[in-house]
Amino acid sequence: MTVKIRLYVDHPLGDGQTVPLNRDQAHYLFGVMRQQAGAHVALFNGRDGEWRAEVTKAGKRAGELTCLEQTRPMQMPPDLWLLFAPIKKARTDFIVEKAAEMGAARIMPVQTEFTNSERIRQDRLQAHAVEAAEQCGGTYVPEVTDLQKLDRVLTDWPLDRQLMFCDEAEAGQARDLAAAKPGKWAILIGPEGGFSPAERKRLHALPNAHVVSLGPRILRADTAAVAALTVWQQALGDWNA
Amino acid sequence: MTVKIRLYVDHPLGDGQTVPLNRDQAHYLFGVMRQQAGAHVALFNGRDGEWRAEVTKAGKRAGELTCLEQTRPMQMPPDLWLLFAPIKKARTDFIVEKAAEMGAARIMPVQTEFTNSERIRQDRLQAHAVEAAEQCGGTYVPEVTDLQKLDRVLTDWPLDRQLMFCDEAEAGQARDLAAAKPGKWAILIGPEGGFSPAERKRLHALPNAHVVSLGPRILRADTAAVAALTVWQQALGDWNA
Repeated sequence: MTVKIRLYVDHPLGDGQTVPLNRDQAHYLFGVMRQQAGAHVALFNGRDGEWRAEVTKAGKRAGELTCLEQTRPMQMPPDLWLLFAPIKKARTDFIVEKAAEMGAARIMPVQTEFTNSERIRQDRLQAHAVEAAEQCGGTYVPEVTDLQKLDRVLTDWPLDRQLMFCDEAEAGQARDLAAAKPGKWAILIGPEGGFSPAERKRLHALPNAHVVSLGPRILRADTAAVAALTVWQQALGDWNA
Repeated sequence: MTVKIRLYVDHPLGDGQTVPLNRDQAHYLFGVMRQQAGAHVALFNGRDGEWRAEVTKAGKRAGELTCLEQTRPMQMPPDLWLLFAPIKKARTDFIVEKAAEMGAARIMPVQTEFTNSERIRQDRLQAHAVEAAEQCGGTYVPEVTDLQKLDRVLTDWPLDRQLMFCDEAEAGQARDLAAAKPGKWAILIGPEGGFSPAERKRLHALPNAHVVSLGPRILRADTAAVAALTVWQQALGDWNA
């Protein structure tokens, strides 16, 4: 099998465009992956689709690629946010990776009343999202926002954005996504301790809220994130395109 | 929040039944979780539902519980097997955990032509399945089988078991699960390198095979496992009960 290297770069891509590599990228490409001048790499920047590029300068701490041709058009994910309460580090990393693979446009860690974790490393999580995008063949990298209080997020909730939430206290309730409209959406995954009564009340009072059941067993937050994204993508997202 | 302790035991459960604890269970319950005589614990054994039991003897290396009342009836998962090609250790562990949470009845690691990993630790994977069952509130623990060659598994494939497989080479193809019948099923997740041409041909030739798309992005095997289980549970499993 040939290994196809895909790199996310924060630089314009286009016909004949040269793209400088920073130290980390040069280390990865030339040190870790042993590529040399003349090698072909796939580049994407979240705006210009995917381009085949050739290594035109290779050094230990820097390098340069030159775009040859576009290999995929830019494909935006659906306008879907994933909100989740951070849990143990490895599982939080996992949720971010999965959200990027599954096609969320924005990943928002939120602090709920029963959230244990009070801080996240936004830069680390963003790096996981980049890596997942490189891996999954997408041309888009979801933005990972800083940790915000759920309370605050709900106060500022945009009126035109629908919210699907998964509440284990209501496991078994029928799904109502079939009748829902596409457009701007968000999925909220509860913390492992569940939502507080006040939070639950508030969520149900939102005009655009949809409670969705994820089956009779209690799912861990990371499992629930992938399952909820699957349910949404099938019903309203880009899995039927 | 009160922590509800759930323990899987390989022992009959019933009214007034006493259940001995082995050394590991006693260490966990009395050492790690700091429980004492008189504490209540939920027990299940995969056959008799869930029982509330009281600690009637607590020691460093052994202990005994006595069943008080049944708190959940026995609930079997759908007759669904999950077949997957083992990958890196952490991700293989993850697939087993997720399959148990999502309600697979049997978990079968299979070696495909492009599988890198040639051995698994069946006992470790089985322990992960037990832990996931304890965590998710289920009353059943899926059996994890030993690694088998996919080739062999397909040769012996039971005629009455339908197979859903997810093939990234056919991403985008329409799902045909809607028209499928419930009953005995299996899901096969391909290895990260994809199926070989010979395997693909063989899978398509199976009389009961269904190809299912998991969207336009390439999912890692662990993501694909959760997504495929979601698709199946929604269409044919116990999520609509």
